[in-house]
Amino acid sequence: MSGINVGIIGFGTVGAGTVEILTKNREIISSRVGNEVTLRKIADLDIESDRGVPVDRDLLTTEAMDVIDDPDIHVVVELMGGLQKAKEYILKAMERGKHVVTANKALLAESGQEIYQAAEHYGVSLAFEASVGGGIPVIGALRGGLSANHIHTTMGILNGTSNYILSRMTQEGLPYDRVVQEAVELGLAEDPPTLDVDGIDAAHKLAILMSIGFGSAVSFEEIYKEGITELTPDDIRFAGEFGYCIKLLAISRNLGGILEARVHPAMIPKDHIMANVNGAYNAIYLEGDFVGSNVYYGLGAGRRPTGSAVVSDIMDLARQIRLGLKMPMPPLAHVSPPEAGIHIQPMKELNTSYYFRFSVLDSPGVLSKISGILGNHKISIASVIQKGREVNGSVPLVMLTHEARESNVQKAVSLIDGLDVLTGKSMIIRVEGK
Amino acid sequence: MSGINVGIIGFGTVGAGTVEILTKNREIISSRVGNEVTLRKIADLDIESDRGVPVDRDLLTTEAMDVIDDPDIHVVVELMGGLQKAKEYILKAMERGKHVVTANKALLAESGQEIYQAAEHYGVSLAFEASVGGGIPVIGALRGGLSANHIHTTMGILNGTSNYILSRMTQEGLPYDRVVQEAVELGLAEDPPTLDVDGIDAAHKLAILMSIGFGSAVSFEEIYKEGITELTPDDIRFAGEFGYCIKLLAISRNLGGILEARVHPAMIPKDHIMANVNGAYNAIYLEGDFVGSNVYYGLGAGRRPTGSAVVSDIMDLARQIRLGLKMPMPPLAHVSPPEAGIHIQPMKELNTSYYFRFSVLDSPGVLSKISGILGNHKISIASVIQKGREVNGSVPLVMLTHEARESNVQKAVSLIDGLDVLTGKSMIIRVEGK
Repeated sequence: MSGINVGIIGFGTVGAGTVEILTKNREIISSRVGNEVTLRKIADLDIESDRGVPVDRDLLTTEAMDVIDDPDIHVVVELMGGLQKAKEYILKAMERGKHVVTANKALLAESGQEIYQAAEHYGVSLAFEASVGGGIPVIGALRGGLSANHIHTTMGILNGTSNYILSRMTQEGLPYDRVVQEAVELGLAEDPPTLDVDGIDAAHKLAILMSIGFGSAVSFEEIYKEGITELTPDDIRFAGEFGYCIKLLAISRNLGGILEARVHPAMIPKDHIMANVNGAYNAIYLEGDFVGSNVYYGLGAGRRPTGSAVVSDIMDLARQIRLGLKMPMPPLAHVSPPEAGIHIQPMKELNTSYYFRFSVLDSPGVLSKISGILGNHKISIASVIQKGREVNGSVPLVMLTHEARESNVQKAVSLIDGLDVLTGKSMIIRVEGK
Repeated sequence: MSGINVGIIGFGTVGAGTVEILTKNREIISSRVGNEVTLRKIADLDIESDRGVPVDRDLLTTEAMDVIDDPDIHVVVELMGGLQKAKEYILKAMERGKHVVTANKALLAESGQEIYQAAEHYGVSLAFEASVGGGIPVIGALRGGLSANHIHTTMGILNGTSNYILSRMTQEGLPYDRVVQEAVELGLAEDPPTLDVDGIDAAHKLAILMSIGFGSAVSFEEIYKEGITELTPDDIRFAGEFGYCIKLLAISRNLGGILEARVHPAMIPKDHIMANVNGAYNAIYLEGDFVGSNVYYGLGAGRRPTGSAVVSDIMDLARQIRLGLKMPMPPLAHVSPPEAGIHIQPMKELNTSYYFRFSVLDSPGVLSKISGILGNHKISIASVIQKGREVNGSVPLVMLTHEARESNVQKAVSLIDGLDVLTGKSMIIRVEGK
């Protein structure tokens, strides 16, 4: 084998980053791989726009099938995004015996099972380091350095846009809408950034991490998803007074036979190792039965970090091809997956601590009414902040609870919201990482 | 191949952890590897003491050569530590065509070149994830997920004992001697913990990280080493007033053709992602030309985390053996290493910012004398704290500088130390991560 040839489908942000690295770091890549890695074709509907990287025009094509059908291409890199078309191209490439690299988290989260099985069926490798955490090699860690462990906990800050918004709300005390508007104007967020702020993107990534951790495709639909759109600067400030900060977390916890799987805003202590993860950075906290707590931190998106992950996957495949291997490891890194399958705990059975913010009339007896309802639902209060200052005739009543059950919390807060002393909708934030 | 057999030399802390994981996680290991991994022999001079793990007595031997000469053993795991004997065993095992796993950072740092070359000569694999950062898979990240990058900066908190001591000094305001004494009494530190607190252990690990990053064995001798023994609670408190904390850092920076390589206490900003790395935890900050900043965090030592890294290496080799591979990747993960070699910058040529603490008489003109000498050596002052309170007739004069040259700093401070207004030895701490 005198070198390996790569074809890319999708010449957008990550595609341009990938091309840039393959070009600029050509020397170190071949020094590490032991083989030349050559970019042979790039397919995109738009082959006119300047991507800011020098590229031979002869490599460009508007037909994805030109890449897939090229007999000299060993590795097909899918960076077009989207679901149906991307899946079709990936499956066709595998059918032709080509290895596939993809950064498509939505596709893997929603159709992973079909794609993982196709890779095994055709005996080709599927690599997707870039699908979670941008340039952070967390998939490599799960497949490699942590592989001797049962993974008990996964807790990720996996969406850079949400983390940027929360960081600015925290640091500058600004309301959600204003920060989002500025982020959109600065080109830092989609307009509207629905998939980001509603927790969908983080849940896609959590599904992929869980699938590798447990060796079996996790159903994205079963993951609980709650976004950051309801958070107020008040909540962030009160959390701070209790010694916490608020992050959008993607959490999975192995309770033994059953798994928590949930994405929602959560309070973590200010001295937690994840508390300093700000702006566009991502971080993944993993807990294994022997390794204990590990954290991986880095830029979670963007042309250069994500391109770094894509190229590391290409290099890994290039080494395999040099060694004459087809599929040294199945996509989920379990040669014989556990038979038990994966069972997700319904959200209502969650047990954790909670933060509540009630908007109440500043009148006697309110605390007793509310704490009565909480007590009836086996929710015990750990601490309370009651602020005297009135906002539109009401005052915030803020509390932290000891561990309680989600179903009880939902019932209790719904009863409390019906009290005539309540002046607005209540806020519930779960507390993690104590 | 119906399974792979492992022999361990050295049944100490990490050996016991390795045995425990191979036993307790047997099922997940074979599910991920696709092969049974069987422990076949354990050699140690002491085969009587209870290690707290159930082990078949028939596996135990006092002769390391029993492991090395066993034709059924595929992987030899060296966990005895020490230099000469360990090297001899590793080389003999390789000569017999066995793959080797080691956690021996001192050996790799001091005789790496010889061992890396032997692995290539005999065509066997050498794995050493456990040699740096305990259970943190940072070597895997350098060999894998970051491999598309030139590594520009490595900045590690690599010695858990020193970090524990500094964390307690910081959190409790205690003096160095007292914390060390308690750590020794609690069994958390060797007596005396020289290799830890003098920066030797961290320099061993830095040499290994640099060797993989640059594809060529780095000479441990050329790394600058300075320990934490001179730090006082005052320094930690003053650092805090400037917004910094103090960590023992192992730093390498690629200046283009020449590399910084140094271990010393350093001040980093309190909001730096490495600032919350406390107690026995380790963390490694890596900066690549495309991936940007990455951090890997976890327990840096101990039976279970280090055992986790050892077993992940064994699993990697087990997969290779199943696939019929001998040495898919050379030890330093460069098939054709860069020819230029590695050049370490002499410490005196370092350019960075500095913290100075001078012990001076509380008399007029002192600041002007000192700042005069600094100015003559092109060292400009960024900020100053002068405390009125006298300690033994002297007051601390504390300052931060702008970027200056190490040789000038050493000359200036040596001149200042000769002034008659100085009442004690001055302290110099370098400032990083701004």
